[in-house]
Amino acid sequence: MTLPRIAVDAMGGDEGVQVMIDGAALARRRHDRFNFLLVGDQPRIEAALVAHPNLRAASEILHAEDVVSGEEKPTQALRRAKTTSMGLAIEAVKRGDAGAAVSAGNTGALMAMAKMALRTMPGIDRPALAALLPTLGDNDLVMLDLGANTDCDARNLVQFAIMGAAYSRIVTGLESPRVRLLNIGTEEMKGTGALREAAAELKAADKSLALSFDGFTEADKISRGDVDVVVTDGFSGNIALKAVEGAARFVADLLKRSFASSLRSKVGFLISRPATELLKHHLDPNNHNGAVFLGLNGVVVKSHGSANAAGVANAVAVTARLLEENLTERITADLAKVGAEVIRKPARARAAAAAEAGQ
Amino acid sequence: MTLPRIAVDAMGGDEGVQVMIDGAALARRRHDRFNFLLVGDQPRIEAALVAHPNLRAASEILHAEDVVSGEEKPTQALRRAKTTSMGLAIEAVKRGDAGAAVSAGNTGALMAMAKMALRTMPGIDRPALAALLPTLGDNDLVMLDLGANTDCDARNLVQFAIMGAAYSRIVTGLESPRVRLLNIGTEEMKGTGALREAAAELKAADKSLALSFDGFTEADKISRGDVDVVVTDGFSGNIALKAVEGAARFVADLLKRSFASSLRSKVGFLISRPATELLKHHLDPNNHNGAVFLGLNGVVVKSHGSANAAGVANAVAVTARLLEENLTERITADLAKVGAEVIRKPARARAAAAAEAGQ
Repeated sequence: MTLPRIAVDAMGGDEGVQVMIDGAALARRRHDRFNFLLVGDQPRIEAALVAHPNLRAASEILHAEDVVSGEEKPTQALRRAKTTSMGLAIEAVKRGDAGAAVSAGNTGALMAMAKMALRTMPGIDRPALAALLPTLGDNDLVMLDLGANTDCDARNLVQFAIMGAAYSRIVTGLESPRVRLLNIGTEEMKGTGALREAAAELKAADKSLALSFDGFTEADKISRGDVDVVVTDGFSGNIALKAVEGAARFVADLLKRSFASSLRSKVGFLISRPATELLKHHLDPNNHNGAVFLGLNGVVVKSHGSANAAGVANAVAVTARLLEENLTERITADLAKVGAEVIRKPARARAAAAAEAGQ
Repeated sequence: MTLPRIAVDAMGGDEGVQVMIDGAALARRRHDRFNFLLVGDQPRIEAALVAHPNLRAASEILHAEDVVSGEEKPTQALRRAKTTSMGLAIEAVKRGDAGAAVSAGNTGALMAMAKMALRTMPGIDRPALAALLPTLGDNDLVMLDLGANTDCDARNLVQFAIMGAAYSRIVTGLESPRVRLLNIGTEEMKGTGALREAAAELKAADKSLALSFDGFTEADKISRGDVDVVVTDGFSGNIALKAVEGAARFVADLLKRSFASSLRSKVGFLISRPATELLKHHLDPNNHNGAVFLGLNGVVVKSHGSANAAGVANAVAVTARLLEENLTERITADLAKVGAEVIRKPARARAAAAAEAGQ
């Protein structure tokens, strides 16, 4: 099967064009079915490609004069959708010139541009950013939203749950992934009104959805392997994800420091290197890089701004998998099966439907 | 100097009376100036004290017939303030019969009871739960709110910053602790309206406060040692704290698993035990147990529900330190120095002041 090609925004990211190109080249070495549309400043992309003749042969370059900066407001970036590398990468997906887009640029701008060009799926008000996180169980877990939506109401959270379950099914093969809402306690009375309302709706609709709703979970329990999808608003999700990353780095630094504190420990460190390497592999965010915007009519993947080439390659691999597994079609089909009373259409659509029914 | 005695709610916590008594006994062995008022079911407390004649000699028992349960709503618990161990422990602080109270019970009930009995300080709308967290720097950091207030407005956050700085000064000895607001990015436009407003107020008032406001921080950067006080709403704070705890446990479990995976690693583990013990010590939440409600006219400390005896002893030690250092008086004095335009009195008090001025 030929895979649709992947549009890479070569200009996004804190680490520059070379890291994006190195990452694409690494992904290409691993899977020679991958083909790319590299979007950005042509001379700089050409220069970065000199080291990678294999990638060069599998890529087309689409020149973009402009770059979306990290500090730019989404509304500003939207106005430059036709000239920036990010905007043109997404535009290529819209035109069908690429199957998916990957960018390491400004998350807010990427979300706004993707929503504008690709539109949300029927029944979805807002896309959510979802990533796979490691657990102590057999499967990775899907967590969303990780920062695309600062404020979320109950309806957003219910839609996130349905989309997260669809993503989890692709990754885990489970028929009915276990879904929980992130909260500051597991008792029914805990948390915000939106959380309590979403929990009640998911509990009531549980049977009609292809997921098993297990109530609330707390942030210290998400990696134990007893939950497949963790749903939260983008503010809390971003805080939780970064807290985990920071704690992992804190531990790694402490470990290094404590191993260095005596000769005995140094010897222990050398002998136990395979163990600590395994640990490092598990904790390195590059190995979990690649968050997808769920709920769009197309696949758009966000690579971490500070990811290295291995991280970028990982984000490309995630993108390819979502294309192979027909993520967009499967979520759309899931949503179509769900009763309208569960995902509830936006107020405007409801009003339009009511007006039509009245004719 | 004689320390005021500490009222211990012997019935709170998931681990039962014995752990609370064992913890108090451990704290007493370390500091023989400590005296206690042990509040709860007298026969059970007496039974738990059999193993601790030293603690017995330094304690009075106050019988309470009732216990606040973990699932109880704060409003329900408030009605039983005169009969429950938690209510009577706080009541003892109000009467001056104890200098401070420690409880491992229901956080919401403890907050409600403490607020009702002790009242908030002048200029403070809501108390906040603050804890000390380890960093890679020389000092622990103060983080608040950790779950007392699910929703916070800009005024709450500004008040938390002032109180957190006062606590930090006690712990670190710094004249002007570095304060940051927890957010999902460091750019000015990021986050909720309340966060942006609080940042603007703190920036404008920075000079008149005994703190140095450094803008926003993200959850992956709080333990690096370049910030002394992290301010957040109770929902995000609770999520961040638990995410860190969960990540630390995840790493410890992974480490154990990876060390067990080969003979070579097992040998490495044994040789490097001093290093991993140091790590364990740093990561064990019991070693950081004891969160204080800042903003009350009195010291009330929350011990983690699942803390062991060492954790309870740590919470008692935190309590004693706050008494010795006159936490309540120092925060009250700090608040008095701050201009009313910064901490802004509650609307009702402002209206009353206006009415009075109009007479």
